[in-house]
Amino acid sequence: MRLRDLGEWELLRRLAAYAPAGQFNDDATLLEERSGQQMVVNTDVLVEGVHFSDATIRPRDLGWRAAAANLSDLAAMGCTGVAGITVALVAPGDTTWNWVEGVYAGLRDALEPHGAVILGGDCSSGAERLLSITALGRVANGTAIRRGDGAPGDWLVSSGPHGLSRLGLALLLDELDAAQVSPALQERAIRAHRRPVPRLDAVAALHSSRPSGLPWRVGGTDSSDGLAAAVGAIAATSGCGALLERSQLPIDPELAQLEPGERWCLGGGEDFELVLALPPSWAEALLKALPGARCIGSLVEAEPGLVCWQESGEPLAAAAHGFSHFR
Amino acid sequence: MRLRDLGEWELLRRLAAYAPAGQFNDDATLLEERSGQQMVVNTDVLVEGVHFSDATIRPRDLGWRAAAANLSDLAAMGCTGVAGITVALVAPGDTTWNWVEGVYAGLRDALEPHGAVILGGDCSSGAERLLSITALGRVANGTAIRRGDGAPGDWLVSSGPHGLSRLGLALLLDELDAAQVSPALQERAIRAHRRPVPRLDAVAALHSSRPSGLPWRVGGTDSSDGLAAAVGAIAATSGCGALLERSQLPIDPELAQLEPGERWCLGGGEDFELVLALPPSWAEALLKALPGARCIGSLVEAEPGLVCWQESGEPLAAAAHGFSHFR
Repeated sequence: MRLRDLGEWELLRRLAAYAPAGQFNDDATLLEERSGQQMVVNTDVLVEGVHFSDATIRPRDLGWRAAAANLSDLAAMGCTGVAGITVALVAPGDTTWNWVEGVYAGLRDALEPHGAVILGGDCSSGAERLLSITALGRVANGTAIRRGDGAPGDWLVSSGPHGLSRLGLALLLDELDAAQVSPALQERAIRAHRRPVPRLDAVAALHSSRPSGLPWRVGGTDSSDGLAAAVGAIAATSGCGALLERSQLPIDPELAQLEPGERWCLGGGEDFELVLALPPSWAEALLKALPGARCIGSLVEAEPGLVCWQESGEPLAAAAHGFSHFR
Repeated sequence: MRLRDLGEWELLRRLAAYAPAGQFNDDATLLEERSGQQMVVNTDVLVEGVHFSDATIRPRDLGWRAAAANLSDLAAMGCTGVAGITVALVAPGDTTWNWVEGVYAGLRDALEPHGAVILGGDCSSGAERLLSITALGRVANGTAIRRGDGAPGDWLVSSGPHGLSRLGLALLLDELDAAQVSPALQERAIRAHRRPVPRLDAVAALHSSRPSGLPWRVGGTDSSDGLAAAVGAIAATSGCGALLERSQLPIDPELAQLEPGERWCLGGGEDFELVLALPPSWAEALLKALPGARCIGSLVEAEPGLVCWQESGEPLAAAAHGFSHFR
């Protein structure tokens, strides 16, 4: 059996057998409690030609994105603080220092607003460039966000718009006639692709908006693999179905007019927003506390993981699922 | 400027500019204190063709070695507990599941004796196989081992013999006529190469042997890059010179008779023993508490990092320095 035949998900499923039960279920890893907090650790690897290419990303943006993606996983676990990251860098001998310097500067840029630092790392030669990043964050006891903590009746809230990063990529790859897109949206989309912002602020808003007396229970994940995949993952892990309101999709109105707009909103990926499942009273308070957040649907009693349109009751086309490596 | 021209050390020096001052000085990273303990995090990357090859290591041994090397860095920081590791795996699509399974089984085998687990990770396709591992451990407040905590007058103690791993590699590569080596030593050497043991037990012995009233101050590192490099690193970081007793080198007597024996003892590397600088009374107590440990010399006031033979006063030949990637 070869990896290309297994696919990434099956590979991860098999690898999970070597870790404690449930250890691979979430975006990152909780360690045991220490004086009121838990440490959270998350590892991501980015490989040239698979996750990035010189054609679409400059080294400083690559560094930013790599750190931001990892911090987004910490936010998705409910972290309110980030200690920092370790970085393993592999690159061929003919890689320029300029490239490496740009990447590390980008890492630092993305960490600084969160008071986080590069904690250490390793490097080696290798046939292709890659970064393996491990981020460490902290979550106050009892306030983690878990994929499986949603419940029927919860509202689904998106912390921000989706599809912009994919539009940015399309513009950078000339997949799209730029004349179709206003200069303002072009700029926003390319910025969303190059400099995504991990939504640790949304976690803070979750804390400040919790109705008094309501116990902490938040289902959620980030939308790095796409909005539909995030909703599906919350629903499946929580043992629920989900209804999405097509009229409430978190999409820029101008992008919605483009042919691939809705597809990119649902499955473009790499928007790094949080998708949360919350009791309605908390969701309402969160929407007031977090400008740009939107209620996009709800969890319902149904086949676990089944995502349907609220308006028509039809299941979403299995368009947008994650990106499988090894194939 | 290209990486092959910089070399690994210069690259690391430049990367350190992106982290807090001193952050890259030790084998692993201390996080802030939590209820009497500090979290320690360490990242190592292992690349096929650079750090391992199918010709000399089976997948299960590779997994063991990868985890053991990382845990050795935790021991070198004074950790008494290991939480676990995260693993980023990169491999081409034609890699067999068998290979991956063997590696993860080896990782688990090496972790289990320490109560540690695989905490999470990531995987991706890529042109060549590699593992990036981040280990997390804990050290009681005020009992870390730092490279720079040695002082003139300290004894240098090695937790065990050196050169066996290199001998094992030579036997596996047929660099050496196996008839020169007794079957018992062959077996020990190949085992030392395939299944090195991280010396967390030596840290426990350090704790139990501390003379009452003596404050905690231990200089040290592990000998993954070779015994001479470890002594040089402690001396340089502590602002001392070091004297090594040639007659007390921690080498198997049979290996000492082979032509490359002393060279491999000093520079073979990957023995994963601890090399420690301690006040003499503590060193004496440690030698009693830790069978196989040996006093190999001392730190002295001299040019920082200069390592000389005690018997002759001559500096060690600059034979054995670390292995530089990117060249």
